[in-house]
Amino acid sequence: MDNRVAVFRKEHFNAAHRLHNPEWSDELNKKIFGKCNNPNYHGHNYEVIVKVTGVPDEKTGYVMDMKTLSDIIREEVHTRFDHKNLNLDTKEFENLNPTAENIVITIYNLLRKRIDNLLDLHVRLYETERNFVEYPV
Amino acid sequence: MDNRVAVFRKEHFNAAHRLHNPEWSDELNKKIFGKCNNPNYHGHNYEVIVKVTGVPDEKTGYVMDMKTLSDIIREEVHTRFDHKNLNLDTKEFENLNPTAENIVITIYNLLRKRIDNLLDLHVRLYETERNFVEYPV
Amino acid sequence: MDNRVAVFRKEHFNAAHRLHNPEWSDELNKKIFGKCNNPNYHGHNYEVIVKVTGVPDEKTGYVMDMKTLSDIIREEVHTRFDHKNLNLDTKEFENLNPTAENIVITIYNLLRKRIDNLLDLHVRLYETERNFVEYPV
Amino acid sequence: MDNRVAVFRKEHFNAAHRLHNPEWSDELNKKIFGKCNNPNYHGHNYEVIVKVTGVPDEKTGYVMDMKTLSDIIREEVHTRFDHKNLNLDTKEFENLNPTAENIVITIYNLLRKRIDNLLDLHVRLYETERNFVEYPV
Amino acid sequence: MDNRVAVFRKEHFNAAHRLHNPEWSDELNKKIFGKCNNPNYHGHNYEVIVKVTGVPDEKTGYVMDMKTLSDIIREEVHTRFDHKNLNLDTKEFENLNPTAENIVITIYNLLRKRIDNLLDLHVRLYETERNFVEYPV
Amino acid sequence: MDNRVAVFRKEHFNAAHRLHNPEWSDELNKKIFGKCNNPNYHGHNYEVIVKVTGVPDEKTGYVMDMKTLSDIIREEVHTRFDHKNLNLDTKEFENLNPTAENIVITIYNLLRKRIDNLLDLHVRLYETERNFVEYPV
Repeated sequence: MDNRVAVFRKEHFNAAHRLHNPEWSDELNKKIFGKCNNPNYHGHNYEVIVKVTGVPDEKTGYVMDMKTLSDIIREEVHTRFDHKNLNLDTKEFENLNPTAENIVITIYNLLRKRIDNLLDLHVRLYETERNFVEYPV
Repeated sequence: MDNRVAVFRKEHFNAAHRLHNPEWSDELNKKIFGKCNNPNYHGHNYEVIVKVTGVPDEKTGYVMDMKTLSDIIREEVHTRFDHKNLNLDTKEFENLNPTAENIVITIYNLLRKRIDNLLDLHVRLYETERNFVEYPV
Repeated sequence: MDNRVAVFRKEHFNAAHRLHNPEWSDELNKKIFGKCNNPNYHGHNYEVIVKVTGVPDEKTGYVMDMKTLSDIIREEVHTRFDHKNLNLDTKEFENLNPTAENIVITIYNLLRKRIDNLLDLHVRLYETERNFVEYPV
Repeated sequence: MDNRVAVFRKEHFNAAHRLHNPEWSDELNKKIFGKCNNPNYHGHNYEVIVKVTGVPDEKTGYVMDMKTLSDIIREEVHTRFDHKNLNLDTKEFENLNPTAENIVITIYNLLRKRIDNLLDLHVRLYETERNFVEYPV
Repeated sequence: MDNRVAVFRKEHFNAAHRLHNPEWSDELNKKIFGKCNNPNYHGHNYEVIVKVTGVPDEKTGYVMDMKTLSDIIREEVHTRFDHKNLNLDTKEFENLNPTAENIVITIYNLLRKRIDNLLDLHVRLYETERNFVEYPV
Repeated sequence: MDNRVAVFRKEHFNAAHRLHNPEWSDELNKKIFGKCNNPNYHGHNYEVIVKVTGVPDEKTGYVMDMKTLSDIIREEVHTRFDHKNLNLDTKEFENLNPTAENIVITIYNLLRKRIDNLLDLHVRLYETERNFVEYPV
């Protein structure tokens, strides 16, 4: 039997964004992205749930110290994106459309570098209570 | 690495239902289904979470337009079941016991016809905050 | 300074109901109550929050034993209404339209008889997460 | 005894904003408003809970039709503010700092004109799950 | 019209406690406090919601800077009570039974000293999602 | 296609605990477990979500009667751990560090004996809203 356990940590950040494809006309952007294309941006309270999977250490009983995980999320996600305009204030979305899908992949890639490779990593991102995404599947 | 992302949309409906197997005696129905067998029905605020999995489109950054997904759920689920008596007002449960298990399979089948076959589909249904189901697994 | 404290206890029940005024025509009922007038009923997961206000007892530090309050709510509200059709299965709504307003007043009156008159009583009732009522104000 | 009942309806909108006092230097704005002063804006999922208090109508059992209340909130709040930049896209906050306090007063004033004067009105606004405001008190 | 606005801030702490009156026999303590009297303690995730009421400042649009309020709550409540045994580790509950009622009054008194007297103060404390208290009323 | 459905039931318990490895010095325990090592314990409102997966019975439409599942969880988890000090009052954690990881594995093993082997079993445990674990993965 697989003796691995998954541990989850939830953090949040508040940001503005706009969905826009610069290769398209304004009309096409408006048609595809609707009110999410508003040129002056809108915003969300994003919730991030990070899932780390591995075998608990025999001495600590921890898969990973949740304080360490929380610190990593704060450094890589909160500091980078909180109270920012994703399109204007971050290099990650300078040339990448900040859809929930692209944000969750970006967060995964930022965290993957900081989490031991023996541990599996998955990220869920809530854009609103009713819209959310997960990566990888 | 799998570059697929899962996107989720939550919707709700309010309905009455009664658990009952017409092949059984009243006594057996009462014994098996308890107060859920009340002949005059009881009801729930059902929450539906629909999960669609696929590769984000390069141009939009979307797995699927969440507005489209929301519209499909409203047409197939909300319009059909909201403020209805599942046993008396719907053809889906005319001859099918409306347990949470049967409702979630029914919703899956209704939505599966409307979602591109390149995309995986999963449905979670909350009958109450404490009782919920998922299909497929 | 007022040394009173308010204590709150949350309980729930699931019920079917239909909004209907028997003095009106079917057309007027349909017009006024919309889909809540569905003749075959619909239902909700009701949440009840009971607020009791008084001076904490010096010996116990309690305004009221929350176990006692919970038991009273279960006897007067849960046993009476859970998994019931409010219109058909309860004498309280035999001749009273089971709107959220009328249900909260009814619950208040049922509980008021069971709570010490030195204690103030208020009831909040959630019909859904988005629709709720309070009595008295 | 007061026979009034309070009814509540919850709605939401997503918006970008920036806290800024144009009479102040950039340094003072930065000092007072911190990261909420980010020139490129940030955003929130705002939740609005509108409370209307009055005597239930004898014929309907309603203080106010919640469908009507929901429509009014959507027209006055959702249409006006959802997926908008409060500072740039709305006349209400063209010259008014969009703090939670000013937003809730603004929403109250917009709704007050639409709600019968026999009914009391109160508004609660959640900026985040941890920060919220109410007006009037 | 009253131009005051109420602002709310939610914080949390995790603590162990035991309900016990040292003037009583073990039997009476057991009878009155039930399993909350367990000699080895049990625990809760407490949520604190602090409500501050006043007139928004014309220049900032703030009743009170929520960062300042959050800092005060962290200093007076979180630092003092988080990951503590209320009965053994705190001087506040050395001789005071840590019922929810007594905890909320204690938190109020700690915060009252730190909040401008022109501002009204109220505290809500959740012991569990189903049991909570408010002071003053 | 797999015709299995997953059913979930949520229950809760409140308990005190302390993280501690008796083979280590006090200094090392303090360094590794931080404030979770407090010698006088702290506590949590634990939420348990039990997932059972199988093929719904043709006659009942149930994977498993949720009343039965709820009873099993209450007997094995709530009765055993609610209002207890996990370190001092339970034989399960007499020699096992009560980290969330070890608690979820323990609950899984207790429930596994009580659930039909034709059914898959998974357990999620919330220590707080922000920290939770799952087993098996």
